[in-house]
Amino acid sequence: MIIVPGSGSRSLAFKIAKAAGFDIVDVEVRSFPDGEIYVKLKERVKGEEVALIQSMAREPNKLLVEFLLTVDALRSSGARRVIGVIPYFPYLRQDAIFEEGEALSAKVVSKVIGGSGIDEVITVDPHLHRIKDLSGYLGVKFEKLTAASLLANYFKGKVDPREVLVIAPDEEAEQWAKPFAEELGTDYEVLIKSRKTPSEVELKAEELSVKGEEIIIVDDMISTGTTMAEAVKALKLKGARRIFATCTHPLLIGDALYRIYRAGADEVVGTDTVPSPVSLISVAPLIADFLKNL
Amino acid sequence: MIIVPGSGSRSLAFKIAKAAGFDIVDVEVRSFPDGEIYVKLKERVKGEEVALIQSMAREPNKLLVEFLLTVDALRSSGARRVIGVIPYFPYLRQDAIFEEGEALSAKVVSKVIGGSGIDEVITVDPHLHRIKDLSGYLGVKFEKLTAASLLANYFKGKVDPREVLVIAPDEEAEQWAKPFAEELGTDYEVLIKSRKTPSEVELKAEELSVKGEEIIIVDDMISTGTTMAEAVKALKLKGARRIFATCTHPLLIGDALYRIYRAGADEVVGTDTVPSPVSLISVAPLIADFLKNL
Amino acid sequence: MIIVPGSGSRSLAFKIAKAAGFDIVDVEVRSFPDGEIYVKLKERVKGEEVALIQSMAREPNKLLVEFLLTVDALRSSGARRVIGVIPYFPYLRQDAIFEEGEALSAKVVSKVIGGSGIDEVITVDPHLHRIKDLSGYLGVKFEKLTAASLLANYFKGKVDPREVLVIAPDEEAEQWAKPFAEELGTDYEVLIKSRKTPSEVELKAEELSVKGEEIIIVDDMISTGTTMAEAVKALKLKGARRIFATCTHPLLIGDALYRIYRAGADEVVGTDTVPSPVSLISVAPLIADFLKNL
Amino acid sequence: MIIVPGSGSRSLAFKIAKAAGFDIVDVEVRSFPDGEIYVKLKERVKGEEVALIQSMAREPNKLLVEFLLTVDALRSSGARRVIGVIPYFPYLRQDAIFEEGEALSAKVVSKVIGGSGIDEVITVDPHLHRIKDLSGYLGVKFEKLTAASLLANYFKGKVDPREVLVIAPDEEAEQWAKPFAEELGTDYEVLIKSRKTPSEVELKAEELSVKGEEIIIVDDMISTGTTMAEAVKALKLKGARRIFATCTHPLLIGDALYRIYRAGADEVVGTDTVPSPVSLISVAPLIADFLKNL
Repeated sequence: MIIVPGSGSRSLAFKIAKAAGFDIVDVEVRSFPDGEIYVKLKERVKGEEVALIQSMAREPNKLLVEFLLTVDALRSSGARRVIGVIPYFPYLRQDAIFEEGEALSAKVVSKVIGGSGIDEVITVDPHLHRIKDLSGYLGVKFEKLTAASLLANYFKGKVDPREVLVIAPDEEAEQWAKPFAEELGTDYEVLIKSRKTPSEVELKAEELSVKGEEIIIVDDMISTGTTMAEAVKALKLKGARRIFATCTHPLLIGDALYRIYRAGADEVVGTDTVPSPVSLISVAPLIADFLKNL
Repeated sequence: MIIVPGSGSRSLAFKIAKAAGFDIVDVEVRSFPDGEIYVKLKERVKGEEVALIQSMAREPNKLLVEFLLTVDALRSSGARRVIGVIPYFPYLRQDAIFEEGEALSAKVVSKVIGGSGIDEVITVDPHLHRIKDLSGYLGVKFEKLTAASLLANYFKGKVDPREVLVIAPDEEAEQWAKPFAEELGTDYEVLIKSRKTPSEVELKAEELSVKGEEIIIVDDMISTGTTMAEAVKALKLKGARRIFATCTHPLLIGDALYRIYRAGADEVVGTDTVPSPVSLISVAPLIADFLKNL
Repeated sequence: MIIVPGSGSRSLAFKIAKAAGFDIVDVEVRSFPDGEIYVKLKERVKGEEVALIQSMAREPNKLLVEFLLTVDALRSSGARRVIGVIPYFPYLRQDAIFEEGEALSAKVVSKVIGGSGIDEVITVDPHLHRIKDLSGYLGVKFEKLTAASLLANYFKGKVDPREVLVIAPDEEAEQWAKPFAEELGTDYEVLIKSRKTPSEVELKAEELSVKGEEIIIVDDMISTGTTMAEAVKALKLKGARRIFATCTHPLLIGDALYRIYRAGADEVVGTDTVPSPVSLISVAPLIADFLKNL
Repeated sequence: MIIVPGSGSRSLAFKIAKAAGFDIVDVEVRSFPDGEIYVKLKERVKGEEVALIQSMAREPNKLLVEFLLTVDALRSSGARRVIGVIPYFPYLRQDAIFEEGEALSAKVVSKVIGGSGIDEVITVDPHLHRIKDLSGYLGVKFEKLTAASLLANYFKGKVDPREVLVIAPDEEAEQWAKPFAEELGTDYEVLIKSRKTPSEVELKAEELSVKGEEIIIVDDMISTGTTMAEAVKALKLKGARRIFATCTHPLLIGDALYRIYRAGADEVVGTDTVPSPVSLISVAPLIADFLKNL
């Protein structure tokens, strides 16, 4: 298998290739002054099985178009099989039409990706809530990996697993907190979220008794950090001793990281599906293992 | 018919609706802090015939994704027929694989647009050079309009058509200069272009006798302005009296406009397929007429 | 005198030089990938009197730093006198401390400009409201020109001045509407503005009788277009026949232009202090005249 | 002392406050749609001694203007003493006029910072080459700290200091490699750099015998990564066993990190003067200690 690093995941792709012992074929990506992208493979891939690694965070539209162009270049160049590895899969929050007239973004973007010429899509902890599987939208095989065990392993060296309580900051996050807690061998609780305004949420930890406890708050992603900061604040108020915040995808828009620290978090940590200052845990071994066993 | 103005062509869409007497249905387009776009139609379009107006210049990737999302919203909302009007169609310069390993961008972007759920694509003066028609890539009906006559009309009030020479700055531009000259009722010539470096071109006007003449240089688009500025310079050196530069699509990246003036142009003018300080000529009547006659 | 075109006003600077018969010395401005700017004069200016033309709209911080660097290059290169022509002067809305803890941006930016090594600052229709003069902040001579007469001249060919009513969309705009109406030889009225939310304003035209009348709404700048669109709407509701919207500085952020058209405006027009699709009126003659008479 | 976190160094400022036991006063920073910035202190600072923490990397012009506005807000609000902590000080590469007509950016930016109303400037490993001290330009007290010992400490746990060779990738980097090697208790060598084209450099390691050795390449900053990648490549070719790349300021523009890994580096690590995926070493203790001893 050959690894092709998209510009949204260059360093991660390098680590995957290294972990799996795969060769890399680089791809030149240039932006013209008019905003258009140019893509060219730097080496031959004829007859090869290729994994294109491309997270689509922060500049999702540009990275999506780059992905489509790269798949086309791989296909035209005769790649035998093209696997799209999209560690952070974008546009999944709009997975339903909440109000009449809205676009169903998760479907639209999935369809475009699925129709690009790839044989299969692999992602890590996709934000699937109302729908459980993207293969219907994608039209190709879909595989989701989870970083729960990598995240849990990180904390095993930091805390005494039996003395820590795992918290899902809201109901949507329960699907991430539960397996994380199981991996760690401890319990989890779910906070009640109420949205005060579109940009303000309040999280209630009323029933919880966390006085003096160690807490790990787990979510799939930290975007603006509002939810996570509110959770930290609520738990701090209830007397938590130390609070760790963790997620798979640290998008960390604007001041997100600062807000979470300022709310009282002792550490924030995530993976490198989205490169960030807190991306201390690499999903490279997870993806490398999966690709080796294909 | 109903006009839906995409954010790449809001004012043009307004003028089309006004010229044709069509109603407008607005579309809310929001950018989330993580770069994702949200699209929502503000009124019902059930059972309607809709023309979505969306040029894709300057931020082509964002505007492309917005287009896809808007078509989805129109389809989900029950629009009977959706016509994609893309006054400036992007990514057409890469209409062939010049070097092994390149993506065929024109095909990739056309396929995505054609597969979005639209019934037909209309564009103005697309940069088609090696391929003559996009319908093969699009997979839906494709119609190209030309602004040649609108541009020529503008100049009829400025110059004496019989005393003006039309110039195509290079061979690719002949397809725009020829009909323009015919509309104006005058002759045209083609300059010889030689590319010195990737960003420098030289245009030769050696054989041309333009001393004391009025010149209109015609191209389909002005992007960085390099080609146009070189043409102006070459013709100025040969003694042209007044030089006008015109095009359908004034992308005018960076200092393009200034460079053309500085090279010696007396006026630069284009249409509003791409909104710019020189977009004095509106293609609204052209598109309105076409839509009324569908 | 020599004209140096800053990258915020390249085309305008060209027109000023042409109108005044001054030579141009170009300045190379490059952006490094780390966001820093590099500035270099392309010709000698030793012993010369120089006017650096630089509006600071849309990317005010970058254009401000470019201005400071260019003035330094001019001074180091031995320019005898440096006049800073800033057709659009930024950061003037924060001309007072409205709440404790705020920065007084108008003062800070003026001080930096005034301390850059220039001898004098010239601007067009600065947004001065609470303070009447910037020379206190600048510490150098300050001259303000007005585009009122250029704007009025434009409309003299469009409407019958005696049958048109000039409107200031709010009290702040009276200082622009009044001289404009005088130039046109007609009357003006002021709308009452009430801010419903930070981004929504309501304009009242209750007492006004504008049924069947021609209206020109005048402001110094159109930024997001909220104020102008509300004024158009209010006057349309009262039965105005035709509504023109005009301003010196058409910043036209986002959908501003569309919103004003959609509210019912028949035409929107401004000057080229800020290059835009409605910048049909050039302030070049105004600035050229002033510089010639220095 | 009170810490005020600028938006270029929010998380670092938090860590400094925590390490030193200082209180934080937050500052609201908003960007208007026209690109202007609004700054407001959220709490009172009257009579206080304040350290404003603001690196100016990646968006140096915006962060510079924010800095000026924040200092103004602090002064207007009655802060007794304002210390400007600028962990990454921008625009220092242009510290001389290399060609006639250039701006002396280092001087211009320093003058603006020094004239903002601060009492003192503190920075970390500034890129001072031809000039040794910024106080002449700043006009206020200037203090430079170095991260050499923090970086060296990081590597003490990774390698056997006596078996490692420190490399300066070019002559300019010797000033960073030398104290780093001393801290580590080992030797250093300097590579010879020759610039092939403006964006390509070649580094020669001809005389060096590094076969089977452990190498740490040290520079003050990694910007596009060209220099560092070339150094890694040259040393790899000479048979180095493991190569570490380290710097104080990991700007890491575009694909810089990937290029260094791809060239053969085993690890890349820097400090949080510039937040990045390799900012594993915090300069917070360094700055906290200095501020406590003021």
